[in-house]
This record gives sequence, structure tokens and C-alpha cells, in this order.
Amino acid sequence: MIRKYTFGNPFNTEAVVVKLDEEKTLLPFFEVREKKEFVLRLKDSDVVYGLGEQVRGINKRGWHYTNFNADNPHHHEDTRSLYGSHNFLIISGEETFGVFFDYPGRIEYDIGYKRRDTMVISADSSDMDIYIILPEEGKYKELSIVKQFRRLIGKSYVPPMWAFGFGQSRWGYKTEDDIRQVALEYEKADIPLDSIYMDIDYMDSYKDFTVDKSKFPDLKQLSSDMKDKGIHLVPIIDAGVKIEKGYDVYEEGVAENYFCKDKNGEDFIGAVWPGSVHFPDFLNPLARDWFGGKYKVLTDSGIDGFWNDMNEPAIFYTRDRLNDTLKEMEEVVSENMGIIEFFHFTGMIEDLKGNEGDYTKFYHNVDGKMICHNDVHNIYGMNMTRAANEALNKINPDKRTLFFSRSSYIGAHRFGGIWQGDNKSWWSHILLSMQQLPALNMAGFLFIGCDTGGFGCDTTEDMMMRWVQYSLFTPLFRNHSSDGTRLQELYRFSNVKNLGEMIKIRYSLIPYLYSEFLKAYKNDEMMFKPLSFEFTEDDLAKDIDDQLLLGDSVMIAPIYKQNAHGRYVYLPEPMMLIRMRSVDDFETVNLTKGVHYVKADLNELIFFIRDGKAIPVCKTCKSTSQINPGTIKLMGFKDATYEQYFDDGISSDLSRITVKTIGNNN
Amino acid sequence: MIRKYTFGNPFNTEAVVVKLDEEKTLLPFFEVREKKEFVLRLKDSDVVYGLGEQVRGINKRGWHYTNFNADNPHHHEDTRSLYGSHNFLIISGEETFGVFFDYPGRIEYDIGYKRRDTMVISADSSDMDIYIILPEEGKYKELSIVKQFRRLIGKSYVPPMWAFGFGQSRWGYKTEDDIRQVALEYEKADIPLDSIYMDIDYMDSYKDFTVDKSKFPDLKQLSSDMKDKGIHLVPIIDAGVKIEKGYDVYEEGVAENYFCKDKNGEDFIGAVWPGSVHFPDFLNPLARDWFGGKYKVLTDSGIDGFWNDMNEPAIFYTRDRLNDTLKEMEEVVSENMGIIEFFHFTGMIEDLKGNEGDYTKFYHNVDGKMICHNDVHNIYGMNMTRAANEALNKINPDKRTLFFSRSSYIGAHRFGGIWQGDNKSWWSHILLSMQQLPALNMAGFLFIGCDTGGFGCDTTEDMMMRWVQYSLFTPLFRNHSSDGTRLQELYRFSNVKNLGEMIKIRYSLIPYLYSEFLKAYKNDEMMFKPLSFEFTEDDLAKDIDDQLLLGDSVMIAPIYKQNAHGRYVYLPEPMMLIRMRSVDDFETVNLTKGVHYVKADLNELIFFIRDGKAIPVCKTCKSTSQINPGTIKLMGFKDATYEQYFDDGISSDLSRITVKTIGNNN
Repeated sequence: MIRKYTFGNPFNTEAVVVKLDEEKTLLPFFEVREKKEFVLRLKDSDVVYGLGEQVRGINKRGWHYTNFNADNPHHHEDTRSLYGSHNFLIISGEETFGVFFDYPGRIEYDIGYKRRDTMVISADSSDMDIYIILPEEGKYKELSIVKQFRRLIGKSYVPPMWAFGFGQSRWGYKTEDDIRQVALEYEKADIPLDSIYMDIDYMDSYKDFTVDKSKFPDLKQLSSDMKDKGIHLVPIIDAGVKIEKGYDVYEEGVAENYFCKDKNGEDFIGAVWPGSVHFPDFLNPLARDWFGGKYKVLTDSGIDGFWNDMNEPAIFYTRDRLNDTLKEMEEVVSENMGIIEFFHFTGMIEDLKGNEGDYTKFYHNVDGKMICHNDVHNIYGMNMTRAANEALNKINPDKRTLFFSRSSYIGAHRFGGIWQGDNKSWWSHILLSMQQLPALNMAGFLFIGCDTGGFGCDTTEDMMMRWVQYSLFTPLFRNHSSDGTRLQELYRFSNVKNLGEMIKIRYSLIPYLYSEFLKAYKNDEMMFKPLSFEFTEDDLAKDIDDQLLLGDSVMIAPIYKQNAHGRYVYLPEPMMLIRMRSVDDFETVNLTKGVHYVKADLNELIFFIRDGKAIPVCKTCKSTSQINPGTIKLMGFKDATYEQYFDDGISSDLSRITVKTIGNNN
Repeated sequence: MIRKYTFGNPFNTEAVVVKLDEEKTLLPFFEVREKKEFVLRLKDSDVVYGLGEQVRGINKRGWHYTNFNADNPHHHEDTRSLYGSHNFLIISGEETFGVFFDYPGRIEYDIGYKRRDTMVISADSSDMDIYIILPEEGKYKELSIVKQFRRLIGKSYVPPMWAFGFGQSRWGYKTEDDIRQVALEYEKADIPLDSIYMDIDYMDSYKDFTVDKSKFPDLKQLSSDMKDKGIHLVPIIDAGVKIEKGYDVYEEGVAENYFCKDKNGEDFIGAVWPGSVHFPDFLNPLARDWFGGKYKVLTDSGIDGFWNDMNEPAIFYTRDRLNDTLKEMEEVVSENMGIIEFFHFTGMIEDLKGNEGDYTKFYHNVDGKMICHNDVHNIYGMNMTRAANEALNKINPDKRTLFFSRSSYIGAHRFGGIWQGDNKSWWSHILLSMQQLPALNMAGFLFIGCDTGGFGCDTTEDMMMRWVQYSLFTPLFRNHSSDGTRLQELYRFSNVKNLGEMIKIRYSLIPYLYSEFLKAYKNDEMMFKPLSFEFTEDDLAKDIDDQLLLGDSVMIAPIYKQNAHGRYVYLPEPMMLIRMRSVDDFETVNLTKGVHYVKADLNELIFFIRDGKAIPVCKTCKSTSQINPGTIKLMGFKDATYEQYFDDGISSDLSRITVKTIGNNN
């Protein structure tokens, strides 16, 4: 049961695909204060799930969050905004319900921060649609709410199956030789690989849809050579378009008024990697069409996957603010500057990067009306991915293309996946990624994963091993790191052999992972669930925020602590522990319901098969293109069967997904 | 068995108080490369303990640390330097030994970072004494090594007993009224309180040993009024001395050459809170005497406790570097500045604060020789606390004064306690504090604790409750926070009553905490121990880094996760669980050896009494001055007895500590 309540004149975000009539009754559950604050009293036992890509645990109580998309590489406990805005929550307790605030601007969630027993949602304006979702009859209230919500917002994006292979990335691959070297080293190390990512250095002066010919003389040949090895190249596309006379994207955008405007109607100028840029007006369908069409420059070279970055949009500085700052600095800075002036001066410089005030300085053309970016900020990145998705569906109507984005809003889940942004090589960021998975699934995002090994800071050999043991369960499985950090391709480490065994295990699990992904797509379900969504009567399960149910048959409980030789695991039912050193070297142990300390040395992967269940496992291989369905066997409880979802892995026609029940005795 | 190995011409740090002859044999265990790198092969099962105040877990393997004291409020997983340098480690495995690198400059520890199986210690120079400590016969190798090491470095500092009371602090109490208000609110809330801290705002323009008369017209009267309520005022003293004509400390320091000099022999200038300052040359005994004598300004007003801050020393900027930066900026900054220039420019500004290069720019007078600060940087803060300690022992020879410091080096443990620096209101910082406790005890620091509730960032009501439940076991128990963060005195929260109950529990436990503190002092033992130090044959105990043995009778297992209603606990032996809501409202449960999930609602404190043991508990009270030994009863296993250490709580003569065995039937 979904009810829609409209306040003021909402902007149509296109997050929702089902047209509902507006309710004329009062908004239930919430007290509405001045139409801007929505207040809910929380009971001691209430749990609050959702908010997608946000910090803190699975239960969001006890912090105040701001959904206002930010290029923020500091994913700290006190961080309030990350790259995406996913305004969907479930309040679970005596009265369990879901709520979606469909609002494209800044929105604040005080979930028991000021007062533990009070939740307050407030936004810059009161123009919004609010959807209240009540569970259908039955035991699984949260799952019922999610399913209804997912039908409201439309089918999730499904990538080609090769996107489930392992990918290697780094901001720092500068030439064709760097790419070939990565492929060669993985081959030498006998580690499967399906993709190599190309960060900003492949472009000519960071200009979108250009290739630096001095470093990549023949991308088509490179792409073709890589495909022969089963490796797809996946280039990055940034939001900002470099201002440069003669550069076609710039010239066309200016000529056609496809860029965002400042208050005087001039093309707005910000600075990002290319220096001064204009920002395409992705809210304008004509601009989307035009920008999306540009991807053909790369697909013509054999590219079939893209990641869209810097699309919050990130702004390092604006010319105006820089000039104002330099002027003010002249007044403040002197040899006899006091401490207050010193902190004022350094603070001004710090405030240049990612200054939210810049978002009030430019405008979109929406059906001929100028809309301030600040008011629709959170749907900018979504519409960039939409531009690419819709254009590529025209360019390659039969085949699926890989897309994922940094910035997102609910609705973006129909156009691509997301990665969880610029994390760090911190042990706690393994856990943070895992805790976001169910919340992202709730919001419709199925193709998700984090930068394995950590993007910023320096990783270690053991961190990489544990991180791989976690990420090998996520749909997007990519090793990625920042320029200037320790090199972290798997072959850089002395335990490369054991790391390789983990990647091989990933490939043997793809039949299960891909099947559960398709199932979640087809049935509008979650691939990753908190234990409490299925074990609804189990109080201890509500406390567990470092284990997840993965599909129907598996529970994961990754090790995310340095130097640990195992971890505590809570089993809400009897399960089978799988402890694997390689595809062929593993043991299984049947464990009872309850609390266990499960041992796992550094080179040992652990996971659990649920009571009476089994999973399909195939012979491992070098690339997803070599996966042989004929080698699939079931692993798990004797006599268990498995409902396998599958398709050809590439066709755009998702009605071709089929289901069959398999067993070892079939 | 302790062996001393000398390389080059070490600077005498005075960390060690026992004179040992230099060994003429080769340094055991380590391969010495070019006399600058000490290399040790680590076995898979080796555990590395120690390094005092550092990030990451109890087992230090898997990271590279730099001991070079830093004013660093970012205690992150990838942080390499904090405020103290504690160069003592125990390598525990087939061959267990301790090692102390007595070296006052920058020293690096790669403990399995580059390669998991290799530890490399390297320093700026090879002039150092290295002490190797082998365990005595017996089962407790690590404890035997610690005890020998502690005898080598001399007796730990013991504060007055009132320092075990609860203290309230905030950077932001600006006037006498603010202080009186805090006292009044605690009184109204019926919460015990022994101290209120005065941060930098009490001073006149941040000038050491001054009081701003407009805000604190009569400190003596205020101090006396507070004492009547059982509350001690504890002012801060910073290292830098403001440059201001007519200010006596400045004038005397210049006249007597008590300040650090630049390379031209002029008094070196840095900038901190007061603006431009000189730094007292604490390595010069005459300067120490002089600066220490200044504390009398405050003791004459009835002050009997101090905290020494900014003594790494922190430097916000130096005039020279600021001028150089401004000059370079003029060249770089322009309206057409590119992205590379932009990051260069903003990087220069960022690099002004805490720039390590500044430490090469000034000198100490050591026995008439000019020693570059950089080479002795890590012992600066220690000698500031020593200055205070030695002077106060002359001013008040009979009574103990409370001292603790931010910066430290081994040896400082004889002169005062330390707090664990400017942490944040992060849940992970509860755990970080706990993990440092045993490493600090190893290094001799017994009077320790962290800023409860977190210094930086905003705390929450539930975080404060869980943090109090942890900190109530630490000797230093202080609620402290930064200006600009959420107000966090306990009476700010809606659950003030339950928070108050926890403070009352602290007061009832002081007989045990103080006794275990005196015992650790007298016997050169650890008050906080990893489980593995006592359960040496227990493999699982080696993995546990979020529980500690506290003294002889208690194990603590604080809850440090938001929204948790309990936690996993490993019991290496049968123990008695104590679950307390207040001093009078609690239950006890006997638990078996093994793994448990122990429930504890937000308002419930849990801890454990070890098998067959008991602890002395007294009637709670408003202030340590009211503790009545006549009310002490044992809590714990029936028929258990307890060896209680006690004294009058204030006398400087620590030979008066006595021991008696108590039981409930005595």
C-alpha cells in the first residue's frame, strides 16, 4: 500500500515511474511543522533503515545526515554528505512503514541526533512529494515495503555479465603501455581479469571524448587486443567540459546553449581537472541527447563500458570566489597577522574547494524556465548517467553497456550502477561499504561495490587480502586506487598467489552472484539484506550489522580487522560454514544456531550456506567469457536444490531471463 | 635480563634511571644495516606489542609508524605520528623479547608494512642506545619484560587521589561565571564532580601564568569556593610564551637566554594561540627551574593541578615560512591560475600549520652546546612537565600535585600523566583509547585517559553514555570538548539521570581503581593488560583487542558501537558478569569460559569479575573527599579476598603505601 502526499509544487525528479493520485488526508505518522519539518517520535526499540550511501551503521539512528551530493573523499563518522542522495527510509518497530521524500534539493535527517527519541526531516523548501509505504500482510514487513517501493521507482539497471568479472583500475595508468603491462602481469600471475579501467589520464588535457594520441596512439587496436584476452577497457567520463577554442564539445555546447548558465545568462564557469569548464545542463533533454551521443567517439573504438565521475558536480573553485578570496586575502594577510586573521585566511583558502555556495550561482533550463542548480542539485549526476544510458541504448540497441556513476539519486538505479566513491585504505571502510549495501539495494541500486583495497591512503598486503575476501561477493568488484598512493595491483604483493586464489573463487561463484542479481532485478528484491529483514523475531539479529544475507542461500561475514585470525559470527539458524583457501582446497563445517568465533587465517575465505540451501559453483576460469554452465555443481546441504536465473549475459532484452531448478542429482 | 647496546654518541634523554654497562657483543635478534636500519624477520605467529600512543590495534603489525611528536587532531587509521613517542616494543612469539630505542629524534617503525614478514626500524641518525630485555624464567614472558623495563625507566608518577574523581572540561569556559555554572549544574543534577578544567580562555591574551582579571576577577576566591564544594580547578599551561613588552615571563626569558634560539642566536619566533611566541628551552635545567617556578603564581591562588598543552611544541606557523609562502603565492596566484598551480597554492597554505621543517630552525642550549631541536624534538614536552613537576615538588614538598601533559617521551611517566590528545566524537575513538592503554602502561604511563565524549566533532547522547561506561575505568576520567562543537556536559542530555548513575558507580569503584593504580606503581606492573599477557597459551585471547584485564580482579569489555544492545565477549576463564544500572540496581551472572553475546541496554554498564576474585566497592559520594573506607564491601565471588593498597591520597611520601587483605567476613 503506497500513498502519495504532495506539499507545495514539487519539481518532477522522475524518480517515480508509477503515477499515483495525491492523497487528500493528512500525512500519517509525522507531525508537520510549518510544512518544512516532519517530526516523528521514535520508540526505544525502533530501528531506522535506509538512506543508501551514508555513513554509520545499518541502523541509522543517532546521527544527523544531509542529503546534498558532495565530492567528499572523507568518509568519516561525522561526515554528513556523500555522493548520492537516497531519501528512502524504513522505520521498523511496532508500526513499520517506509517513507520516500522525493525532493531534489538539500534535505536534512536528524535521526535521534538532537534527541534520541525524535526524528526530524527538514528541507530548504516544502515543495515535495512524500510517499508512505505500508507493509502487505505477512511476516516480512521490511521486505514487503522494499518490494512495493522498488515497483514504484522502476526496474533496476542490469549490466552485461562481464561486469561481474574482476577489474583492475588506478588513477595513474598514463599510457597504452601501462594498460598492456597490467594485462600482462595479471596473465603472468595467472589471475582472472575482465576489465581494466582508464582514469582521467587517457584524455587529451582532461577533455571529455578525446584520447591523448601521444599516449594512446590507437585505442581501437588496444581495445581489440585486450578483447582478445577477454579484457574490456572502461574509460572515465567527467561532468565538466573544458573551455577551449576549437574543442568540438565546448564549441557545440556553447552554440546550442547546452551548458548551465550564470545569473546573467552567460555559460557558468567552474574549475575542475581540465581547469576552467562549463557544466552540461543534463536536466535539459536536448543537452542529454547531445552529450550522450558523444559516447560514440569511444564506442567506435570498441569501448563497451563507462564510469561517470565528478558529477555531483565537483567544483574545485570558481573564478568569482577565487577572485573575491584573493582580494580579501590582500586585506588580511600581513607580516603582523594575528592568529585570528591567520585562521580566517587559511579558512578562506580551504573553503574554495567544494564550496556549496557555488551551487547557488548557476541555472538549468527546464522547459524554458531557469531553475537554480541548488534547488535540483541532487539529480544532476543521475541525469548525466541517464544521458549516457539513453544514448547508448540507441547506439547499441541490442547489447547492454556497463555504466556506473559516482553521484546518484533514486531513479539513477534504472540507468546504471554506482561505486561507493573515493574511500580510503582503512579497515573501517570495508565495514562501511558492507553496511551501505542493503540500504543501496533498498533504493534500487543493484550494481554496486567499493574501491577494493581503498582509493586514498596506502593499503597493506593483509588489508588487500581481507578486502578481496569481502568484495568478491559484491557485483562490482574493482581494485582501484589514487595516484600518489602505494601501488596495489594484486601482483605487487608477496602473497599474490593466495590473492589469485580468491579471484578464482570469485569466478567460480559468478553463477550464484549473477543469478541472485537477476532474481533481485526481476522480482524487485534485495540482493543484500540485513539479518533482521528475514529473522524478524530475532532480537540479536537486529544488533548484527557486520553480516549480511546475500541472496537466498548465503550469509557473508567478512573479516575486517587487522591481524585477526577469525571473527565472531552470529548464526540465526544452523548453517554450513565454508572455509576456502582455493577453489579446490576448502572444508565445510555444520554449525549450530548461535554465537561462534570462526577461525580464518589470512588466506582463508569464510562464508555460510543457509540451512537446507545450496549454491551453484562453476569451474573457475580466466574471464567471464569462459564460464562454462556445463561445469556447474551445487555446493551446500545434501539434496538441496537451487532456482537459477540466467540469460545470455549481454542481450538488452531482459524478458529473456529464464529460471530453472537445479540439483546435483538432476 | 637487560642488555644495553650503544651506537654512535647518543644524546642522554634521561629516560633510563639505571646505569648499565654497554655490551661489547653484537646486537641480538636484529640485522643492523649501515647502523641506521634495524631489521627483524617476523614469523607468521609473532605479535608485536607496544609503541604507546599510536593508532591501530593492540597488535601493531601491518602498519608503518613514525615517532615524531605531532599536534595532530586527526587520529586516523593512516596517521603515523601522534603526541608522544614511546619507543618500547615487545615481540612475542617463539622468541619473546622487549626492545627500547632510546633516541630523542624522528624514528620510523615499519612493522610488516612493506612486507608482512619484516620489521624495519630506522632513524635520522644512528646515535642511540638500544636496550634488549629478555624474560625471566616463567610463564608470563611479556609481563616479566615489562616489569624489568619499568625498573629501568624508574617509578611512575602518582597523582593525588582526588584526580581519580570525575572532571568536567571544555575549551569554551570563558569566565568565572561559566565555571560556577558548571559546578552548580552538576550539583543540581546530583552528579559527583572533583574537578573543573580551565582551558586557554582564563589567561590574559593566552599569556602563561596570567589570569584575565576582567573575566576572573578573583581566582583565589573562586578556587576557595570550589574547594568548599570538593572541586579542584585545573588550569592549562601552554608551551609558547607570548612576545609582549612588559610581560614578565617574556622579559625574563629574553634577559636570561631561557628561550630557544634560531641559527643566528636570536630568540626563535613561532606563532601559536597568543600570536608570536618564544619557546622556553626546557632542555636547559636553569630554564626549567625558572619556568617551573612560575607555576607558583597559580598555586598561590589555591591551584593544585595543571595540564600542560601544545608542548610538542605545536607551531601554527613561523614568520619566515609565512613570508616565504606569501612571496611564492604572489608568483603563483593569478586569475588564470591552472589546476596544478591551484593545488600548489592551496597546498602551501595547508603546509604552514605543523610544518616539520620548522623544527630544524631552532636550537637548545645543552651544557653550552647548541643542539638542533629536530634532533631532540621528542623530549621537549617531557621536559616541560618535568619543569613543572620538579618546581612544584619544591613549592609544595609534602603534597602531590596533579599534572598531565599532551606531549611525552618515555621518562615523562615519572613526572606526570598524559591524556590521549585531541580525539574526536567518533565511536571508533572509544576503542582506540582502550587499545592504547596497555601500550602506555608498558611505557610507564599509569595516569592516563582520553577526552570522554570526544574533543572534536559533535557527540550524541548515546555516544556519551557508552563513552562514560568505558572511561569510568580509566584513572583520568574527564569530559572534554572543543569550542565550536556540541555542548556535552552531562547535564545537557535528556538521560542526565542515567549518566549520573554511571558517575556514581565510578565513585563506588575508586577504592579498587586507586588500589590497582598504587599496586601497578609499587610493583612496576601494568594496570591494563591485554588478555594474552595472562592467558599466554590461549590462541583466541591473542585475537581479542577490545577487552582488557584491569588490575587483578576485573576484565572490561566496553560497548563502543552505536545502537548496540550488547556485544560479543570472550571469557578466557569462567567469570562473573556484573550488569549495573546504578550502584544499587544491578545483577550478577556467572558465565562459563568461551564466547558470549552479552546484552546491555544503553543505560547498563557491564564488566566482569575474574574467577575466584572480588573487588572493593564503597558507598558512592559527591566527591573523592567524602569516600569513606568504612563503607567498603567486596563484590565478586563468595569467600574471595582482596589485597588492598592504600595511602592518605595526598602525601608525597609514597613509602607510606600500605597493603591489607580484606574479605567480607573480616
